[in-house]
Amino acid sequence: MSEAAELRAALRANDRFYAALTEGDMAAMEELWSATASVICTHPGSTTLHGRSAVMESWAQILQSPPDIRHSDAQVTLIRGLAFVSCVEHLGGGLLAATNVFVWEDGDWRMVDHQAGGVAPAGSRETLH
Amino acid sequence: MSEAAELRAALRANDRFYAALTEGDMAAMEELWSATASVICTHPGSTTLHGRSAVMESWAQILQSPPDIRHSDAQVTLIRGLAFVSCVEHLGGGLLAATNVFVWEDGDWRMVDHQAGGVAPAGSRETLH
Repeated sequence: MSEAAELRAALRANDRFYAALTEGDMAAMEELWSATASVICTHPGSTTLHGRSAVMESWAQILQSPPDIRHSDAQVTLIRGLAFVSCVEHLGGGLLAATNVFVWEDGDWRMVDHQAGGVAPAGSRETLH
Repeated sequence: MSEAAELRAALRANDRFYAALTEGDMAAMEELWSATASVICTHPGSTTLHGRSAVMESWAQILQSPPDIRHSDAQVTLIRGLAFVSCVEHLGGGLLAATNVFVWEDGDWRMVDHQAGGVAPAGSRETLH
C-alpha cells in the first residue's frame, strides 16, 4: 500500500471511531480497538486507563449515552509505522484536542491509544506547560 | 537489551523530560526529542502542534518560566517498539494526565509525542467521552 493510501486509511479509521462514538455502537468500538496490542486511553478529566478490559469498560459506559460529537482538522503523522491522528473534537459548544493512535493489524488500522483534553477558548489560553 | 531494561530506560527518559522542564534546560529538551521522526505535541488547553520546529518553539517559550512540576504513577506500555509512558503531573495543586511517547533512536529513547490534560478533582469528575 502506498503511503498516501495508508494515510487515507488512517483517516477512515479515525472517522469510524467517531461514528462508533456518536452512534453508540459498542460492537464497532470493540472491532476498532486493537485485539493484540496493549492499549491505553485517557478520557478528558481522567487519568490513563491501561489494558483492553479497562478501556472497553469505559467505552461501554460512555456509549450508554452517546455524545453528540463532531470532529475536524484531522491530520495523520506516521511514526515508525504507527498512525498518530490529531483532530479537534466539537462537543456541546466546546472544543477538545484529541490524539488517536493506530497500529496496522489484520489488514486495517486499529486503535491503541486515545487521549482528549479541553481546548481553552481563544483569548483565554494560558499554556501551563 | 531485555524488555525489563527497555522499560527502565523509558522511565529514565521520562524522568529526563520532567527534569528538563523544571530546570528550564532547553538543550536537554532538544536532545530528548527525536531528531528524525515526525513529532507532535498537545499542551494543556491547546490544539496539537506538528513538527519539530513548532514543538521546540513551544518548549522554548514555556522554558522561559520553568513550571514547578512533579510527576508520579509513571507506567510504560510498549506498543510495536514504541514506549508509551503515562503519568500524573502535579502542578500548582492541580493534577494533569500525561502521555509521553518515545521511539528508540541512537541508543536511547527519544520523545515523539507529548499530551497532557487536566484531571478533574475526585468527586467532581464527569466523563465527557
